[in-house]
Amino acid sequence: MPTISNKGKAMPESPIRKLVPYSEAAKKKGRKVYHLNIGQPDIKTPELAIEKIKSLDLKVLEYSHSAGNESYRRKLSDYYKGIGIDAAFDEMLITTGGSEAISFALMTCLNPGDEIITTEPFYANYLGFATAAGAVIKAVTSKIETGFALPPVEEFEKAITSKTKAILICNPNNPTGYLYSETELNALRDIVKKHDLYLFSDEVYREFCYDGKKHFSAMNLKGIEQNVILIDSISKRYSACGARIGVMISKNKEVMTTALKFAQARLSPPSLGQILGEASLETPHEYFDEVIAEYVQRRDLVVSEINKMPGAFCPKPTGAFYAIARLPIDNSDTFCRWLLEDFHYKNQTVMLAPATGFYASKLGLDEVRIGYVLNLHDLSAAMKCLSEALKVYPGKTVKVKELAG
Amino acid sequence: MPTISNKGKAMPESPIRKLVPYSEAAKKKGRKVYHLNIGQPDIKTPELAIEKIKSLDLKVLEYSHSAGNESYRRKLSDYYKGIGIDAAFDEMLITTGGSEAISFALMTCLNPGDEIITTEPFYANYLGFATAAGAVIKAVTSKIETGFALPPVEEFEKAITSKTKAILICNPNNPTGYLYSETELNALRDIVKKHDLYLFSDEVYREFCYDGKKHFSAMNLKGIEQNVILIDSISKRYSACGARIGVMISKNKEVMTTALKFAQARLSPPSLGQILGEASLETPHEYFDEVIAEYVQRRDLVVSEINKMPGAFCPKPTGAFYAIARLPIDNSDTFCRWLLEDFHYKNQTVMLAPATGFYASKLGLDEVRIGYVLNLHDLSAAMKCLSEALKVYPGKTVKVKELAG
Repeated sequence: MPTISNKGKAMPESPIRKLVPYSEAAKKKGRKVYHLNIGQPDIKTPELAIEKIKSLDLKVLEYSHSAGNESYRRKLSDYYKGIGIDAAFDEMLITTGGSEAISFALMTCLNPGDEIITTEPFYANYLGFATAAGAVIKAVTSKIETGFALPPVEEFEKAITSKTKAILICNPNNPTGYLYSETELNALRDIVKKHDLYLFSDEVYREFCYDGKKHFSAMNLKGIEQNVILIDSISKRYSACGARIGVMISKNKEVMTTALKFAQARLSPPSLGQILGEASLETPHEYFDEVIAEYVQRRDLVVSEINKMPGAFCPKPTGAFYAIARLPIDNSDTFCRWLLEDFHYKNQTVMLAPATGFYASKLGLDEVRIGYVLNLHDLSAAMKCLSEALKVYPGKTVKVKELAG
Repeated sequence: MPTISNKGKAMPESPIRKLVPYSEAAKKKGRKVYHLNIGQPDIKTPELAIEKIKSLDLKVLEYSHSAGNESYRRKLSDYYKGIGIDAAFDEMLITTGGSEAISFALMTCLNPGDEIITTEPFYANYLGFATAAGAVIKAVTSKIETGFALPPVEEFEKAITSKTKAILICNPNNPTGYLYSETELNALRDIVKKHDLYLFSDEVYREFCYDGKKHFSAMNLKGIEQNVILIDSISKRYSACGARIGVMISKNKEVMTTALKFAQARLSPPSLGQILGEASLETPHEYFDEVIAEYVQRRDLVVSEINKMPGAFCPKPTGAFYAIARLPIDNSDTFCRWLLEDFHYKNQTVMLAPATGFYASKLGLDEVRIGYVLNLHDLSAAMKCLSEALKVYPGKTVKVKELAG
């Protein structure tokens, strides 16, 4: 039997999906499982977008342009203009989800062995994309005590080697929900400029900013216009994860010309998803007002409930729809599995993502990621399960840690 | 400005799409351009598949399973059973087009520098996928004189080095339209077995076999069950290129488990395309009878018209919807560009794909690929254009070559 590639062996398993067999087993036992482990929002996709697909007059479902339909790119350019981002239609490439945008960016910019600095905890699939591209993720740790704010610039400087080629940020952040400030982004800009790095900015949660905080895009950082590559997607914005439509944007023509070659090899992004994406741009602003109001209520519930649990701590995120909580547990992998295999409260349990999968270092053993993608009623029931679980979990740590807010 | 990756520099431009600016300029001059350069069929997507999308009752367009919807995979397994291929639902991975299936197969099986042997002329994007995976394509030349039959086994043996890891075939073949016989495939089987290689079999044109010839799938080759990886897609079968739905199939569990990790990183294949793909499986057989009858008429027209042109030769393909023709020209790149820039017949011209892009060696200078993706009327007009063009093309070669038939 011929052997598997080294890259294939090195590819990480999805830390979010690896507990799935246990949740399936729990359900087979008749237990209700509250899924707070996923990034699949329960929010409705805008009706006008779905209606567009349903009213299609289509005879042949054809390939599109490899860079995506021009009509869509032109409207997307208007959309960005409306939120203060200058991106012409020929400075973008429609991709198969934000995933493909990251993939294209890494393959376009990095040689095998090149290093990317990001903050940990980070979106676990970055590790997969980096492995596939032969690149190496170096993580600078952001801390729960500061609410996962950008680590000091000195930490980035320390992480830079001769192989460092890029910095990657997710803003607002998955998994921490942290929204980077303009000051923090300018600090990153200075490092990027000083060392002439690429800055990959994953802004797929841009619309989800709370408490009146404003999103500042990396596209608006002065003096590094040729270094920035924006990663975006309609998955979260319009709750259209299954459309698999994202976009890669850069003012750097060499980057875009090169990325187009990767895009041409795979022919085109999904045609139906693009039609839905284009229609989504007509979504009225009230849609987001409602969604954001809903997420704020959910976040407030999660944060306040967790902070009531003895020994637990959850900083208040101001973006995206995730929170990282520190729990009084020995090992988050064991705990999350135990929740599914051995625990139930009134025949219900909760599924969480162990934070270990979001760290490149061996941190996260006492942290979990919580996606608040359930309605308030279910979320409340899920928090009750968690609270009861912490009372009886055999691997509970006695020591209650001192935490700064 | 940071530098582009070596891989990005090495990525080939699409040979099919690089003439697009010239065709656009021709159209701006008011000229009718017959597109025989593309693989986008004009055949209608089955109505029942489009209707399925239009009648969707969908609130949230969610991610699917990373391996694709189980319901779709189970029905697909039945479909394969119906055509004599044994493939269980958990031996397949739904991909974003056949493109992603090839990409996953290469990344799963090959290390940088590993070699893949294929026959040339070959589907140009194989070069792109190989480059992206860091692998190297080694081509064994199939010849127009034999109608692009499988080159002798000795040629493959000669091409094998210590770095050879796989053989890649496309059957029926794009760009030649050649359908490999069971005898030819068994010859490949013997080499694969002897050297313990992977056999990647791209069978996306499987339904398009003519003159009563039957397709033999690599999945049915005895004794190399663990070596074969099947690449398939609904793009051509149901004229649904824009759905971006393909599949990767293998009996090799280690291969499939590894490929799933790449699939998990990109989350899931397009949900709408999968729904359309699943519905397509209900397409009645008459649909294919009609399509095949249409393609046979088109092929017959192309082959007979080209063979009437002095100094031209086109073998009769028995599969897919392409033919490679040898023309009395100095340089197919120059000729195809000249057709768009400098030639017209009654204000019409034809766009062809220069065969040079389908060869790894420097062959194909006097060959073009013709996709018969237009109705008989337009195809006839396109052939008339080509015939007239050959009379006046400045780079016409005087020597009329002797060709075996």
